[in-house]
Amino acid sequence: MIRAGIIGAAGFAGIQLAHLLMDHPDMTLELASSDSQAGTPISEAYPAFAGITDMRFCTSAEVEQAALDVVFLAVPHTASLEQTPRVIESGAVAIDLSADFRLKDAATYEEWYGVAHTELELLDVTAFGLPELFPQEIQRAYERHEEHLPTLVACAGCYPTATSLAAAPAIRAGLLREGSPLVADAISGVTGAGKKPSARTHFCMVNGNLEAYGVTTHRHTPEIEQILDVPGRLVFTPHLAPLNRGLLSTVTVPLTEGANVTCTEDAHELYVEFYEGCTFVEVLPLGAQPRTASVAGTNRAQVGVAYDARTSSLVATCAIDNLGKGAAGQAVQCANIVFGLAEDAGLSAGALPV
Amino acid sequence: MIRAGIIGAAGFAGIQLAHLLMDHPDMTLELASSDSQAGTPISEAYPAFAGITDMRFCTSAEVEQAALDVVFLAVPHTASLEQTPRVIESGAVAIDLSADFRLKDAATYEEWYGVAHTELELLDVTAFGLPELFPQEIQRAYERHEEHLPTLVACAGCYPTATSLAAAPAIRAGLLREGSPLVADAISGVTGAGKKPSARTHFCMVNGNLEAYGVTTHRHTPEIEQILDVPGRLVFTPHLAPLNRGLLSTVTVPLTEGANVTCTEDAHELYVEFYEGCTFVEVLPLGAQPRTASVAGTNRAQVGVAYDARTSSLVATCAIDNLGKGAAGQAVQCANIVFGLAEDAGLSAGALPV
Amino acid sequence: MIRAGIIGAAGFAGIQLAHLLMDHPDMTLELASSDSQAGTPISEAYPAFAGITDMRFCTSAEVEQAALDVVFLAVPHTASLEQTPRVIESGAVAIDLSADFRLKDAATYEEWYGVAHTELELLDVTAFGLPELFPQEIQRAYERHEEHLPTLVACAGCYPTATSLAAAPAIRAGLLREGSPLVADAISGVTGAGKKPSARTHFCMVNGNLEAYGVTTHRHTPEIEQILDVPGRLVFTPHLAPLNRGLLSTVTVPLTEGANVTCTEDAHELYVEFYEGCTFVEVLPLGAQPRTASVAGTNRAQVGVAYDARTSSLVATCAIDNLGKGAAGQAVQCANIVFGLAEDAGLSAGALPV
Amino acid sequence: MIRAGIIGAAGFAGIQLAHLLMDHPDMTLELASSDSQAGTPISEAYPAFAGITDMRFCTSAEVEQAALDVVFLAVPHTASLEQTPRVIESGAVAIDLSADFRLKDAATYEEWYGVAHTELELLDVTAFGLPELFPQEIQRAYERHEEHLPTLVACAGCYPTATSLAAAPAIRAGLLREGSPLVADAISGVTGAGKKPSARTHFCMVNGNLEAYGVTTHRHTPEIEQILDVPGRLVFTPHLAPLNRGLLSTVTVPLTEGANVTCTEDAHELYVEFYEGCTFVEVLPLGAQPRTASVAGTNRAQVGVAYDARTSSLVATCAIDNLGKGAAGQAVQCANIVFGLAEDAGLSAGALPV
Repeated sequence: MIRAGIIGAAGFAGIQLAHLLMDHPDMTLELASSDSQAGTPISEAYPAFAGITDMRFCTSAEVEQAALDVVFLAVPHTASLEQTPRVIESGAVAIDLSADFRLKDAATYEEWYGVAHTELELLDVTAFGLPELFPQEIQRAYERHEEHLPTLVACAGCYPTATSLAAAPAIRAGLLREGSPLVADAISGVTGAGKKPSARTHFCMVNGNLEAYGVTTHRHTPEIEQILDVPGRLVFTPHLAPLNRGLLSTVTVPLTEGANVTCTEDAHELYVEFYEGCTFVEVLPLGAQPRTASVAGTNRAQVGVAYDARTSSLVATCAIDNLGKGAAGQAVQCANIVFGLAEDAGLSAGALPV
Repeated sequence: MIRAGIIGAAGFAGIQLAHLLMDHPDMTLELASSDSQAGTPISEAYPAFAGITDMRFCTSAEVEQAALDVVFLAVPHTASLEQTPRVIESGAVAIDLSADFRLKDAATYEEWYGVAHTELELLDVTAFGLPELFPQEIQRAYERHEEHLPTLVACAGCYPTATSLAAAPAIRAGLLREGSPLVADAISGVTGAGKKPSARTHFCMVNGNLEAYGVTTHRHTPEIEQILDVPGRLVFTPHLAPLNRGLLSTVTVPLTEGANVTCTEDAHELYVEFYEGCTFVEVLPLGAQPRTASVAGTNRAQVGVAYDARTSSLVATCAIDNLGKGAAGQAVQCANIVFGLAEDAGLSAGALPV
Repeated sequence: MIRAGIIGAAGFAGIQLAHLLMDHPDMTLELASSDSQAGTPISEAYPAFAGITDMRFCTSAEVEQAALDVVFLAVPHTASLEQTPRVIESGAVAIDLSADFRLKDAATYEEWYGVAHTELELLDVTAFGLPELFPQEIQRAYERHEEHLPTLVACAGCYPTATSLAAAPAIRAGLLREGSPLVADAISGVTGAGKKPSARTHFCMVNGNLEAYGVTTHRHTPEIEQILDVPGRLVFTPHLAPLNRGLLSTVTVPLTEGANVTCTEDAHELYVEFYEGCTFVEVLPLGAQPRTASVAGTNRAQVGVAYDARTSSLVATCAIDNLGKGAAGQAVQCANIVFGLAEDAGLSAGALPV
Repeated sequence: MIRAGIIGAAGFAGIQLAHLLMDHPDMTLELASSDSQAGTPISEAYPAFAGITDMRFCTSAEVEQAALDVVFLAVPHTASLEQTPRVIESGAVAIDLSADFRLKDAATYEEWYGVAHTELELLDVTAFGLPELFPQEIQRAYERHEEHLPTLVACAGCYPTATSLAAAPAIRAGLLREGSPLVADAISGVTGAGKKPSARTHFCMVNGNLEAYGVTTHRHTPEIEQILDVPGRLVFTPHLAPLNRGLLSTVTVPLTEGANVTCTEDAHELYVEFYEGCTFVEVLPLGAQPRTASVAGTNRAQVGVAYDARTSSLVATCAIDNLGKGAAGQAVQCANIVFGLAEDAGLSAGALPV
């Protein structure tokens, strides 16, 4: 059994990791830290664990010093910059869910996150964790681990995952029209806003409400542009809606003149082929549209695509669970690959049907 | 007091009309029809009216024959084609909430609705009901009514209203970039899907779910293009989210080269000026974003705007209540203007604060 | 126009008061305080007021010194103990929404609230504000005001209002069986938990969840017992459910032997007669059950009643809006009566039908 | 592997069974019927299965004739009366989720369900499926199966399960006061109302609403009385709240004079002992209250208990997932026992933490 730990287990992504690892056939959760709640039973903070585990949150220092096989970091950005090097030193594989090692370009990181990147050597060997779009990167991490080299995976963010899964088949086929932006409007459930109570996450402010936020300024913008290799081309607008889990990204791709996609069937075929062999990505039948409820609690993504003849554009949609394929699920998937396990170990279950 | 009737009062838009008219200072609701529930107390179908009114639904024929001052038609498209002429003949002003008289071009109507338009003469004198963007049309209706001419207002649809209020200041300023589409992604609450029970509107299918629908095919597309005068330029994608009332439209406008909008302040000023004097449209302060909950139950619209320097685009958002400014509220506003009342008579209340 | 002020206007009950008073035909809201947000535009804290008012929160001291006609106190218990005397001294009628002056017996107050009551003289002349059940109390307040005597109304709490409206007709008819408790299980929306962000009010903790709280210890217990005059007889269990506004109380009354209620028709008749002439209480037709959505945003209560032959018990239910008839609405109703206005001035609107 | 089939798989309980059986380590789902949707891919009816299974609904006749090891019946009452005998004849163990074989007394069945019971012999050998309260019954089913005798388990309903788990420790200890009723007020999510679209299950009618229903007449009343052996003593009132899954039952037990429970600690100890060794029932620590979200999607029950000194009553609460421990989970648990598997095979996962 692979011995795993979580740093930052009391947040929403961290606790979802704990949930997944407790049921993982090949990993065992040894330690789960929350510096602010160290000593508290997990089941007190999250009563879904009552009767399931007696584990208590420990400190992050304990995780760093425990010589585990793998450590998942579910901490805010900048905290990971500090903690990941210590995890790597402890000999563990580090699977980072924060944004600190996602952007390949340190200057872009500094521009959007407002702090200098202090771990450039580590950044250089980091694998970007979005296996469907970067199989070679996660493969490199697997090989580094095999060779006992420091191994770090920076998992893609929630919006970047859904948006890129929707857009990649078209973008990588070179279909984006010159001179037009790529437009991504995405809607997230409230777990995406984090666990911290605030006026914004108060039930009564969210329930019955829809709003956009971070308009033109959301930090996932450069990450999506990096994934799709479309610098300066993306208009990304996230929205908040009244549900717990779920993220739907709708991407509009104005097509380049002479594109060989001229009907929805073409687009669909392109997408189906692109995702052939991907366990976790389901391109839906023609006419069906992804539903976030159909992937809630899972590591799955549903993708739909349509062609708009009137404007010669393609509209692609992708639904994920922001805490699943958008965070904890993807992290476990990456760890599975690095350790040579079945890619879907501990991740095979489907969503509740209703 | 102006004597009003509603045809199709048992649907969600129709019953919201009844709610508004019962509290209107200058109108009195004489008759409210539902052919399928004629004879049933309104308070049985909608228990919010218990203790408020003893009125029962009547037949649409009764409304048509009652010689009222104004009749609101909240019926499905094609039904209005049939009923509106009879209402006009009865001498009443007709305020139509259906799609039947919205599209100026009968061929476009036939293309998107699949039936021929049979009332071309009436269509010709119809005023399009979106007073903030077409003040001259509703003024024409006022004048026709003064002159005792047949008077018909075709109120704008819910998505067209929110999308156009978001986009119009930019589009009318000629800012839309040649060669790029106008992208509108909108999210609606479930009252927009109508009252008819179906698998799609079952609580358990909507709750916890986000999905797109009608992708590239939604019938509001030509209506928005007509309002904004951007034929063949719009990619419109509607989404369904788990709330009752509320519609948020997010519009991305790639700007034409040399546009004189080069920062968010410019964009904001453009929008503030555009809506100066409009009672029901509030351009929010810089940095604030519209919330559908803040306009629920009202005839108000909130608008926000931001400039994206990276892509030289403008992102504008508009929140309305799809049954308010998107349907019944707008209809009452139009009727108020036609009858020379205060534009906000019966429509002045703000939303519940929480 | 009666000049009104609110102390504690930034809380959920306070802001609902502001919403009501801004639309009141006979009152004008002069000042609304929030000591922690003094100077902030109300529309910034609650964006539903954008375009409706430019008013900013002031300090409570300003309200106390403004020589208004009426001041509503929507402050936490113990704060009212301090502030109400100053309001009374300012010459204003005080309408208190807190618990500080509700319990007639100071010892009971101390037992349940853990502090000594320091305003016994004022307590002595306080009118309990639940006009349907204590018309003579609110009448006394009216007379005191007419006679320029210090006038204080302590409005009933949300759970006490709904629970007592459900139980009173049976209890006052002497139907409660000796030796059996009166059982009230009530369910509240989340506005009842207040505005303060906490883990408990985080959207993701409430959404999809039901739970009981304050079991056997909720402070509304002695208040309900006082209203119904059933000392030591009530088992009261409140629950939290995922909605904003709404409170449903279900009361089970084991009937005394020989009770003259032996079928649902009897019970219904008893209830209808009891509430005859009460503008805001609607006893629903036989077989219908109250819906909280049907009274949301209003000062109305819906009541249903059924007889259980198997156990010789009566089950009565009452739905209110906890911020309406359970707080701000009731406060305005009380003020209306004290000032000799129509009881429903500013309170006549029904709920949104859907 | 045990070969399993489902009759009535397209309903909410049936599809949850399919979800569970697809992930069961020792059972394989061979056939899942829906007579009205026979031939339709399951993933079309419930898109959560997209990419998970290609299975299509078959007819119930196919299930009856397939010579499976176990057949689960998730059909409406009276349908099971017809179909279960055929399942038994096919040689399969029948696990019935309907109400048809729950009531031991055929006259009571006829009284509450309005039809005569036509399978008295089968009824006679039926095991009642609520293993924590009737271990001997499910043991009898195990033995019958071992002896190749016709084996039928009638699983307890959702309200009876939660209500009885809350009440049983007190009732079986003889604590219910003579002359007082047992009061159970329960709240259910909307999956409990079934899959059929209706005005009552329309999203817009449920969202933001609380209501009681079936007051004094709900058919689970005699079932609960049978389980607890309290004929004619129960007042049961169910309520509907806006969530998908979850059922919370709150039970008030007036205590008999001289009861040896005189504080919450006593009550808690009684409950902890009662459920010792029960895998799926968690008596929460003193002061904690069950949350339905903490058991959603699982076969678990959380129980809380408090003592009310003022009225000498005990208030116990139980949270389950109405489709889990209240239906499909319990059915799988019963099947596990009948086939000698681990009781929690396929049922071990905890709820999503948030």
